[in-house]
Amino acid sequence: MTGKFIVIEGLEGAGKSTAIKQVTRVLAEHGISDITSTREPGGTPLAEQMRKLVKEGHPDEPLTDMAELLLLYAARSQLVENVIKPALSGGHWVVGDRHDMSSQAYQGGGRGFNQTVMAQLRDTVLGDFRPDFTIYMDIDPVVGLERARGRGELDRIEKMNIDFFHRTRARFLELAEQDPRVVIIDAGQSLEKVTADITDALEQWLERQ
Amino acid sequence: MTGKFIVIEGLEGAGKSTAIKQVTRVLAEHGISDITSTREPGGTPLAEQMRKLVKEGHPDEPLTDMAELLLLYAARSQLVENVIKPALSGGHWVVGDRHDMSSQAYQGGGRGFNQTVMAQLRDTVLGDFRPDFTIYMDIDPVVGLERARGRGELDRIEKMNIDFFHRTRARFLELAEQDPRVVIIDAGQSLEKVTADITDALEQWLERQ
Ligand SMILES: Nc1ncnc2c1ncn2[C@@H]1O[C@H](COP(=O)(O)OP(=O)(O)O)[C@@H](O)[C@H]1O
Ligand SMILES: Nc1ncnc2c1ncn2[C@@H]1O[C@H](COP(=O)(O)OP(=O)(O)O)[C@@H](O)[C@H]1O
Ligand SMILES: [Mg+2]
Ligand SMILES: [Mg+2]
Repeated sequence: MTGKFIVIEGLEGAGKSTAIKQVTRVLAEHGISDITSTREPGGTPLAEQMRKLVKEGHPDEPLTDMAELLLLYAARSQLVENVIKPALSGGHWVVGDRHDMSSQAYQGGGRGFNQTVMAQLRDTVLGDFRPDFTIYMDIDPVVGLERARGRGELDRIEKMNIDFFHRTRARFLELAEQDPRVVIIDAGQSLEKVTADITDALEQWLERQ
Repeated sequence: MTGKFIVIEGLEGAGKSTAIKQVTRVLAEHGISDITSTREPGGTPLAEQMRKLVKEGHPDEPLTDMAELLLLYAARSQLVENVIKPALSGGHWVVGDRHDMSSQAYQGGGRGFNQTVMAQLRDTVLGDFRPDFTIYMDIDPVVGLERARGRGELDRIEKMNIDFFHRTRARFLELAEQDPRVVIIDAGQSLEKVTADITDALEQWLERQ
């Protein structure tokens, strides 16, 4: 039997890493313990090198928005072909910290690449490969960045203007609302409430499988 | 006044590096000495890092054809935006060792990406930016690889099966024949004859400017 691909999405500091622990716990309680965890961008030796270029850029040269977009998809191609698809066909479940929805939101919404370009690139790189279930952790970027700041220095993306994150959040919400395979969690609530909401959403989805 | 963008294309060992020296000499004789030389993939700090990923791959992980394609365009975006366009607007002429035609031939012809995907990616990344003049050095891949081998160890691309290079050459020729801004040089001839043909072609083109 092939496994399922569950993705946790959201802005920095939304609580994705925290949510993933709960998702893994709930899956284990349902007897699902062969789990492969991934993170994007990155997750393979080559994809991590691409991630580094995106996150750090170069002191003497701006990374173009276009190169950033293409690097993110190059990294995704490596991860999907070399890790996610093999894991799924081997019967593993895959829990992803971000996937394509992040590109649609950050590069489409945040950077402003038009939807035709974003859809063409997604279809060219991924064909019809999509997550089975996505948990979108919705957070006010001001709150999320405040939480993330607690983790240490900000990278090239995290240093963007707040408007960038507002546009990104708006696109996340738009995409989440139109896709029945995405559930929206109010990530601005207390950790207890967020954890309970994730558990409920995941258990309801598991029952339908 | 903006400069012109001249590109030398062809398989490994076709004689591109050799041709570029002659192109530079001819341009100098015509009083054009503000010349920026580029090579692809690469030519900027970030693009060279992407080139390295394409050329070397990784010992533990295959680079997908898709990631290769996207890295090549990411590198091209960096070079075009950060080097070629600024040089041209500053009045420099740019002489390129490879450009987009190589992707169309190697990834389109050699790897087999379909023409719609190749055209979409080119238009997305480059818009309508194109070289003013391209010198395509046509060589039998067997002869070219024999010449290239003299230079030392072969990289990840140079190690491909000979059929790959035959498909790549066929696409190069197809593209060259249908584009009036491309001249085809028979690069299998003696160095003297090749040099004379390049000089003639370039001088004829310069007269038309
Ligand atoms: N619901 C919450 N309320 C308050 N703080 C939270 C909540 N969820 C996560 N955090 C804290 O916010 C920080 C960022 O959470 P994290 O899970 O790393 O976010 P992400 O992975 O989405 O960037 C961490 O310090 C985490 O403990
Ligand atoms: N017309 C030619 N006949 C024979 N050898 C040549 C000719 N043109 C170039 N060479 C040699 O072939 C090798 C590859 O040429 P080079 O210009 O480096 O090709 P490229 O840059 O296209 O890979 C070099 O050793 C060069 O001196
Ligand atoms: Mg995290
Ligand atoms: Mg050369």
